[in-house]
Amino acid sequence: MIPYLLDLVGVAVFAISGALAAGRKSLDLLGVVVIAVVTAVGGGTLRDVLLDRSPIFWVADPVYVLVIAGAAMATVAWTRRFHPPEKTLLIADALGLALFSVAGAQIAQDAGVPPVIAVIMGTMTGTAGGMIRDVLTNEIPLILRSDTELYATAAIAGITLYLVLGWIGVPRAPSALSGMAAITGLRLAAILGNLKLPVFSLPPEKP
Amino acid sequence: MIPYLLDLVGVAVFAISGALAAGRKSLDLLGVVVIAVVTAVGGGTLRDVLLDRSPIFWVADPVYVLVIAGAAMATVAWTRRFHPPEKTLLIADALGLALFSVAGAQIAQDAGVPPVIAVIMGTMTGTAGGMIRDVLTNEIPLILRSDTELYATAAIAGITLYLVLGWIGVPRAPSALSGMAAITGLRLAAILGNLKLPVFSLPPEKP
Amino acid sequence: MIPYLLDLVGVAVFAISGALAAGRKSLDLLGVVVIAVVTAVGGGTLRDVLLDRSPIFWVADPVYVLVIAGAAMATVAWTRRFHPPEKTLLIADALGLALFSVAGAQIAQDAGVPPVIAVIMGTMTGTAGGMIRDVLTNEIPLILRSDTELYATAAIAGITLYLVLGWIGVPRAPSALSGMAAITGLRLAAILGNLKLPVFSLPPEKP
Repeated sequence: MIPYLLDLVGVAVFAISGALAAGRKSLDLLGVVVIAVVTAVGGGTLRDVLLDRSPIFWVADPVYVLVIAGAAMATVAWTRRFHPPEKTLLIADALGLALFSVAGAQIAQDAGVPPVIAVIMGTMTGTAGGMIRDVLTNEIPLILRSDTELYATAAIAGITLYLVLGWIGVPRAPSALSGMAAITGLRLAAILGNLKLPVFSLPPEKP
Repeated sequence: MIPYLLDLVGVAVFAISGALAAGRKSLDLLGVVVIAVVTAVGGGTLRDVLLDRSPIFWVADPVYVLVIAGAAMATVAWTRRFHPPEKTLLIADALGLALFSVAGAQIAQDAGVPPVIAVIMGTMTGTAGGMIRDVLTNEIPLILRSDTELYATAAIAGITLYLVLGWIGVPRAPSALSGMAAITGLRLAAILGNLKLPVFSLPPEKP
Repeated sequence: MIPYLLDLVGVAVFAISGALAAGRKSLDLLGVVVIAVVTAVGGGTLRDVLLDRSPIFWVADPVYVLVIAGAAMATVAWTRRFHPPEKTLLIADALGLALFSVAGAQIAQDAGVPPVIAVIMGTMTGTAGGMIRDVLTNEIPLILRSDTELYATAAIAGITLYLVLGWIGVPRAPSALSGMAAITGLRLAAILGNLKLPVFSLPPEKP
């Protein structure tokens, strides 16, 4: 029950980030809901399709979509009067990233994939929804750009910690909590300390 | 037989809209066919993948792809001499949207999903091909933008009508026809009356 | 064993083209690896999803992802000191296109699809990764644009040759080699001779 409620909170947080991105592009209300849905369920959907899991998690349970649509509409209503609470949202987003990444890695593990692939599937669960959001709003995905503080990198580090702890014999629950704590901590430290990955920069045109 | 022919007409109409979008970006002939195929089968393909239906409808029956390629080439030939018949195309597109949306919802129903998910799957069948077309031609999807008259909203309303009629006991064929008539009517009324959804607009940069 | 090694070489070549595209957009190191992975496995992944093959080839075998990450990092290191070897890369890319396209068509054949669909699946295997790379870096896919020499067209021609040779009774291995030679030859001839498909060009705005 608690994991399910946490899952819905994570979905709602990502839906809010999608609705805000839609608002920055002046989309209509349907566009807001579509971008919110895609942001919130895109990563998990891609994971389920690539692992051939059926049914896709949100197809089987309409509560996800209803929570997302509610969160998107609440975002529209809230921002008519108030500024979005940027700092609270950054913390909530770091928690959502941690939750989705470790849960996605666990689902991949249960499907019997090799550890490297579990890291990829977990990171994808946490980040692909935001990438699709950025593609649909005609931007290069934020997490690939050089002006973004560590994001997917934090997910990769935390999932790796989770897998290593499990490999040396730590039970699943404390391993997962450690991985999530590492992701949240790394992401928030990266924002506070302005930590970024090195950039790879070539001249735009071929010589 | 009549549903199959209607299906091919719907596919051809969406292929024409894809070919015209490709022409507006000055793509080459292969680009025209690719965009036409993606526009015409993208929504149904996404639906089939998400419902884990196999084989995908156009993979099993090559007639779809051949009709699309023919419609795309006919569009290229026609527009060398004449203007595209914009009004006829808008009416044909509204009919295609109605057909695909209700048919997509029926397929989702038959796969046993909850009603809310059937609405999403039907709307996706009618609209996702156009969204992929817009992403490939580097535009924010038309149906999410605030300058577009009701489009996906018409699909949602008509599919909902179809489901409600079925729920109160109306047989499937008249329910489906009523849903399709509602979608076509709403979409054409929206174009004539310039009906749009409210916009959600935030400043583009974070404060 | 030789096909597997060739497959890894093809994957590495496409990873290099992805890494260079990421560098031209000044992405960070994670962005470089993500674009490299997507470019190298995107086409085969889409093919496997559409044919409902499970597991996806790279999910079952982590060597693919490790080779891609290695090729991407080697590209970053190499271009700090030297120019990318453009001509060598164009030849390698033509070979990769040939290999992936014919191998993709063979996999589709083995799944029992009609010949037209095998052509599409093979061409998609060779080209869809590059299309996703271009979408993620916010460009209209290179292979759809009018300034690109024959690319997907070469794949279509070579796959068709492969299928026709098989249909008239030539064994599979020489048919496949002939198809691959045709693709490589056509692509390189197109670059040398500046061969392009005709353009379809409409005014950008509706009248």
